[in-house]
Amino acid sequence: MTTIKNAYSPGTFLVQAQQLGQCLERYYAECQSLGGRTLPTLDPDRYVEMAEELLERPKADFRELVELALKFSHRLHDPRYMGHQVPPTIPTAALFDTIGKATNQGAAVFEMAPFGTAAEKALIQKMGQMIGWTKGKFAGIGTHGGTLANVTALLAARNVRYQDGWKQGFANSSKLKPAIMTSAESHYCIARACGILGIGTEQLIKVPVDKKRRMDTGEARRLLDKAKDQGLDVFAIVGSACTTPTGSFDNLREVGQLAKDYGLWFHVDGAHGASFLFSDKHRHILDGIDLADSVAWDAHKMLFVPALCTYLFYKDAKHSWEAFSQDAPYLFDPSDPQGMAEFDGGLRTFECTKGAMSLGLWGVWSLYGKEFIASLIEKAVENTHILYEKISKSNDFEVAHEPQCNILCFRYLPAEQKNISSQDLSSLQQKIRQQLLHDGEGYITGTKLNGEYWLRVTVINPLTDESHLRALLGKIRTVGAVFSPSSLPRGGI
Amino acid sequence: MTTIKNAYSPGTFLVQAQQLGQCLERYYAECQSLGGRTLPTLDPDRYVEMAEELLERPKADFRELVELALKFSHRLHDPRYMGHQVPPTIPTAALFDTIGKATNQGAAVFEMAPFGTAAEKALIQKMGQMIGWTKGKFAGIGTHGGTLANVTALLAARNVRYQDGWKQGFANSSKLKPAIMTSAESHYCIARACGILGIGTEQLIKVPVDKKRRMDTGEARRLLDKAKDQGLDVFAIVGSACTTPTGSFDNLREVGQLAKDYGLWFHVDGAHGASFLFSDKHRHILDGIDLADSVAWDAHKMLFVPALCTYLFYKDAKHSWEAFSQDAPYLFDPSDPQGMAEFDGGLRTFECTKGAMSLGLWGVWSLYGKEFIASLIEKAVENTHILYEKISKSNDFEVAHEPQCNILCFRYLPAEQKNISSQDLSSLQQKIRQQLLHDGEGYITGTKLNGEYWLRVTVINPLTDESHLRALLGKIRTVGAVFSPSSLPRGGI
Repeated sequence: MTTIKNAYSPGTFLVQAQQLGQCLERYYAECQSLGGRTLPTLDPDRYVEMAEELLERPKADFRELVELALKFSHRLHDPRYMGHQVPPTIPTAALFDTIGKATNQGAAVFEMAPFGTAAEKALIQKMGQMIGWTKGKFAGIGTHGGTLANVTALLAARNVRYQDGWKQGFANSSKLKPAIMTSAESHYCIARACGILGIGTEQLIKVPVDKKRRMDTGEARRLLDKAKDQGLDVFAIVGSACTTPTGSFDNLREVGQLAKDYGLWFHVDGAHGASFLFSDKHRHILDGIDLADSVAWDAHKMLFVPALCTYLFYKDAKHSWEAFSQDAPYLFDPSDPQGMAEFDGGLRTFECTKGAMSLGLWGVWSLYGKEFIASLIEKAVENTHILYEKISKSNDFEVAHEPQCNILCFRYLPAEQKNISSQDLSSLQQKIRQQLLHDGEGYITGTKLNGEYWLRVTVINPLTDESHLRALLGKIRTVGAVFSPSSLPRGGI
Repeated sequence: MTTIKNAYSPGTFLVQAQQLGQCLERYYAECQSLGGRTLPTLDPDRYVEMAEELLERPKADFRELVELALKFSHRLHDPRYMGHQVPPTIPTAALFDTIGKATNQGAAVFEMAPFGTAAEKALIQKMGQMIGWTKGKFAGIGTHGGTLANVTALLAARNVRYQDGWKQGFANSSKLKPAIMTSAESHYCIARACGILGIGTEQLIKVPVDKKRRMDTGEARRLLDKAKDQGLDVFAIVGSACTTPTGSFDNLREVGQLAKDYGLWFHVDGAHGASFLFSDKHRHILDGIDLADSVAWDAHKMLFVPALCTYLFYKDAKHSWEAFSQDAPYLFDPSDPQGMAEFDGGLRTFECTKGAMSLGLWGVWSLYGKEFIASLIEKAVENTHILYEKISKSNDFEVAHEPQCNILCFRYLPAEQKNISSQDLSSLQQKIRQQLLHDGEGYITGTKLNGEYWLRVTVINPLTDESHLRALLGKIRTVGAVFSPSSLPRGGI
């Protein structure tokens, strides 16, 4: 067994840090040269066995353990990765995050992470102003993930509307039931929030989407007009910026106006899309976001820093104090100077201990600048449009929608498409995706739209170029042909 | 502006990783040699300005940014750090965590983090068995922090008791109000859970504590017997293992028996204390934990890995599915092989994207072994008892309680103690703490007990030895004398 002195030795650390740096350098190089599978063969039980074996019989070789973990990682840095809304991080961001991990700064209390907390506050100042709000009037907090940010915002909204709800609960409390409105395609965490907060998922009014898969605000007004008759007290409306399946942006200006007209809390789930505020080219799709009462914004999506790093913004700073209340003198010292609560984020987050989650974003922004981050966003959107153009021109593919950002749904059409049933067509796409994953030559996802299964990509790797997009379609053709035997690869791009 | 190619260059990364390794090596060495302040001077506004200035005018010097972040960090690795329940991490654990950050594995979906997910599952297998449960029967998930784990467990408990609550909500739903029971000294997140989940903080029954500051189970039975008459339907009881202010462990066997007798869900908040299961010497304080329906366990406290890394365990695996439900075909592929849901943790966590938070713990456990982690725990408790002995023997200090683990509350008694008011005595302790922080020669916390303010330490740095404990008391005497002028430093240790 190692000694405490050795495990905490600065020299031991340096050696290990150098080994880790070398292993990761090789990993990144392999990813970029397509020198391995994008996704390893999926054999969960075997991986668990391997991991468990090492817990039982530890191995005194740091490098070997690192290489094992890397070997069976999903290679998001492979330019053929076009999967979920999880980016291949800017490698340097991971190093800045390592500062917080290695020093274990706890950013819910200023004392426990002086610079980590300050970096977060600085980011919030800049990002809140990008939303279009006035410095000094708004507030923000960092939290672990979009779900948590969305739930926290809706909790604040609930508490603002039902002042006694936090203390008294909701049983036997009201004649009208609290209700929330959102689009039919909003993220599942909005429905979950209703389940969690005691509102009930049945009290989530899902507004149908229009042709662009955005909330139909005309329909929303009709549904609001009859909500009271149904025993509902709608207190909040959630705009999606954007939706997960197709990356569709609700018309935030229209939704904001509607919220104003009906006296609703307007929350924007900008987990994926709020980052487009960084880009002069793409900011316009968020027009109206400044009307929001609260905005959830994942930096670990389109700002290319490691998960998790999410910010929740409140237009009116005082609302940031409405989500929670607590009594914890051991943590928030009552003798602290006036104003410290402003820096003790834990008063306003789920987290009591919180990692110094902002160092990654603060670091790469301070090193490379905001314009560099914008360039990553723009590259992703540009790639998505290239892919869209390719698919639109091919008669053996079909697109589900024009891309609004860097998410695109499409499907492969076999030669016998005219006779193929909707179910078989769905099943073919699923087989194609499974085969792609099995072959390890790229990674895409899929989703259901109107009951049918479509292939889905989030083009999110800044190193992806036209050749990788072309190769993806080629591969799908090859695989698709195998699973639909009467079809031979046709067309070309 | 840097190019995408350069920012993602493996070579750039290697250079930066080496620089970071060197900076952190020096940081650790300085901490260990007491070569600087434990906590930097606290000037939040100035730090925010510095951080913001760099966002406005980026600086192309990686090392300089790293050094800035380190300079204004709280030095938990300084052996004089005896603060909150946040440990100086095993440095190697931070490196293992860096793998997850650098590759951005998303551990809520198996595909997005094959090995990260497997490592978590392996840990859960081992740790669940340490609770005393049977392999194959229990389940666990990793989540971001103790609050989230406690809220998730109580949400599952709520959903199990009120099957319609998730869908229907709680407004107008029940004649008896859902209620939860816990000790008067449980963590604030238990009260918060009541506020969040629509139960209401007024429906939290806080049981008085006994002399050892543990839940008085006799009193708990009396309160349960009259709960129904008060319109309450108690469905869960939360045992603390341990409480935050004084580190007191509820008698889990007694609480478990009570839960059984009254048909309650028994949740154990083991955020700090569950880790004592690692130690043959200290496991006994958790006697009865196997009776729990659910256990929250922070690895980022007494397992010495970086924040956040928490596990939530359910004795009955099927209960792990009760907290949430969702519809997300883009994420959890309906064509996945049977059984994959078992590995897609996101179905059972708040997090939809989840960092590969288990690599740190898996790594150090696999490298150094379980016994090494146990040795850190034992060192912390041993140190606490040494401090307790010193304080007990001094007539210018008073201890609030015998330590049950590595948390201890005490206060300095000035010469005029016989005449000093309770308020002045509290105020003196606050001044002492503020002065300690101001001088940067160590870090301790404080808390309120029975309305009075006490100094509080969590002895959690494995490099702390008798000399640092002695120096702390010496420093407090010096500072205390200044603030209570008629008292001169007395006694000696």
